Amino acid sequence: MKFSIERASLLKAVAQAQSVVERRNTIPILANVLIEAEGDTVQFRATDLDIEVVDRAPAKVDRAGATTVAAVTLNEIVRKLPDGSLVTLTEDGASGRLTIQAGRSNFSLATLPREDFPVMATSDYTTNFSAPAPVLRRLFDKAKFAISTEETRYYLNGVYMHVADGEDGQVLRCVATDGHRLARIDASLPEGAAGMAGIIVPRKTVGELRKLLDDDDLQVAVSVSETKVRFATPDITLTSKVIDGTFPDYTRVIPQGNTRRMEVDAAEFARAVDRVATVSSERSRAVKLQLDEDRLILSVNAPDSGAAEEELAVAYTDERLEIGFNAKYLLEIASQVDRENAVFMFNGSADPTLMREGNDMSAVYVVMPMRV
Amino acid sequence: MKFSIERASLLKAVAQAQSVVERRNTIPILANVLIEAEGDTVQFRATDLDIEVVDRAPAKVDRAGATTVAAVTLNEIVRKLPDGSLVTLTEDGASGRLTIQAGRSNFSLATLPREDFPVMATSDYTTNFSAPAPVLRRLFDKAKFAISTEETRYYLNGVYMHVADGEDGQVLRCVATDGHRLARIDASLPEGAAGMAGIIVPRKTVGELRKLLDDDDLQVAVSVSETKVRFATPDITLTSKVIDGTFPDYTRVIPQGNTRRMEVDAAEFARAVDRVATVSSERSRAVKLQLDEDRLILSVNAPDSGAAEEELAVAYTDERLEIGFNAKYLLEIASQVDRENAVFMFNGSADPTLMREGNDMSAVYVVMPMRV
Repeated sequence: MKFSIERASLLKAVAQAQSVVERRNTIPILANVLIEAEGDTVQFRATDLDIEVVDRAPAKVDRAGATTVAAVTLNEIVRKLPDGSLVTLTEDGASGRLTIQAGRSNFSLATLPREDFPVMATSDYTTNFSAPAPVLRRLFDKAKFAISTEETRYYLNGVYMHVADGEDGQVLRCVATDGHRLARIDASLPEGAAGMAGIIVPRKTVGELRKLLDDDDLQVAVSVSETKVRFATPDITLTSKVIDGTFPDYTRVIPQGNTRRMEVDAAEFARAVDRVATVSSERSRAVKLQLDEDRLILSVNAPDSGAAEEELAVAYTDERLEIGFNAKYLLEIASQVDRENAVFMFNGSADPTLMREGNDMSAVYVVMPMRV
Repeated sequence: MKFSIERASLLKAVAQAQSVVERRNTIPILANVLIEAEGDTVQFRATDLDIEVVDRAPAKVDRAGATTVAAVTLNEIVRKLPDGSLVTLTEDGASGRLTIQAGRSNFSLATLPREDFPVMATSDYTTNFSAPAPVLRRLFDKAKFAISTEETRYYLNGVYMHVADGEDGQVLRCVATDGHRLARIDASLPEGAAGMAGIIVPRKTVGELRKLLDDDDLQVAVSVSETKVRFATPDITLTSKVIDGTFPDYTRVIPQGNTRRMEVDAAEFARAVDRVATVSSERSRAVKLQLDEDRLILSVNAPDSGAAEEELAVAYTDERLEIGFNAKYLLEIASQVDRENAVFMFNGSADPTLMREGNDMSAVYVVMPMRV
């Protein structure tokens, strides 16, 4: 194998691939990236056995072939090469080495045979559709903060992507919850997505997927089978196992009858919550909300260290209400609001509270109260 | 005690003071900052019993007084207050609380009595001089990377500041070494510094001192006694115990007879060392330098993972030489060079090597070789 490639293209492809590689590996080949050169393209493939990413980059291939080398080391080397370098990678089967040459720099890395690299089996993708990158970005970005980290509830360790009935017909929906808070984000149903079986996309996959979605103009091809999901752009294919479990019936958790409506500037609200929470050393300390005619008082009382109180002007016309929340949960939810005021819908002080942006029902959050 | 102060002035003073406070304290009062309001000034004092910092800020004092509160919490609160706020701090002895009020935010923090706060004893400062901030900055910044972290060699855990004989008379000199490398930085002797006893300024003090030295126009008053050193600007006084030990005779370590001279672009050299060191997983891996007529070959050989080699054009006219160094040490030394080319003076491959910037003898570095 021998090919020459622009340092920038090489870095982009290798960086994306190596981020899937786990830093601690008991199986040596899993620390490697599989490099395959053929035609005018080089493919970089990395896996942790649950996720596989394949990056393609244009290159001048002098001799087709394939080998595997340490992904992290290759990435470090390419990163440190001067910008604008032309990099030549050469492997002759006999030596068991890959040489990397750029300018007056020469590197040689130990290889492992391509035959040992575990390429992910293909799957029978029954649903195939395409969605603009910004749509997928919104669906996953706004939901992911609520993913559970409890390993015992493995079926909550991801984002549940499925087709659901929205107010105006079917929608593509992402839901995540950890039992304390929940995010439910909708997008209009892409053509071809109807009838898709719901899948739970694991947390790490959600993180890797994010790197494919930065380009606003990109269409992403999504393929779903019972066991796998695949996201593909012209340069990158990300394939992942889905979580083998049943996502709980979240619809029962979303309160329908909450009528006490508070509207508040989301950024101002988040800053005030952050300030009052300062007096407590524990991050999970409860913040108390006292609501009265167009007035919200946020307060924290930490007997050992101190107390804090802050008043905010809000729109609220219902009767007096006192309710407590975990400060961290309130902050995370408030930071999801990016366009309009945050609207909170309360019921009693022991009941789940609903939050949304203005009157937009396409992103809805639920947070459980805490006793204060 | 009651005073009002601009949020920006308050933040600057509290931030500087709280950075001295150790995060884990067995003595509760050491987590606190002593606030003293009198006249038109407020003082913030913090200590870890080895270092004391006093910050002064202008304030409108309505009622003089003093108290202590948790330094980190106070800093966090002030940091989160909106820019431009006017902050009022009030303490009445009876409640044992300090209230902090800004806009519609109210905080109250638990206090501890000012009497319990350990104010550092004054010392008999026998040497007093004044030096421009940029001069002190250079002396300590260029020396500190070589400070030892070995606790058993406590007398190397700081920068040795003393008066020495330079080429053109007496100089103010800072030296640091960990036995593997050494930095010796000179500045012209400030008036009043002659006769100063050498002191070892501890690592943490060097770090705190750095924050006083950002303003190029500032004159810093330096006072030295046998046990303490004090650095003072109009707003801040930093007092520190010095390390009670004898700094070894470093002059014997600085090679005098090295004649093989290599001159190289320091930035290019550092980047090349960084690149070739990539193939090794251990950070301390040796880099081999092979010198020949105007040519330097840098190489690393890590049998498990790979090898790297890079050629650099240098000025070198002496006979062939092979010598190895710890890559990290070479990088650190090369990154000290900020104006001119790095000049390395070698002797044999087992002898200490000297490095300086061009022909400037006011900053000299020594690094021990490694067998390769």
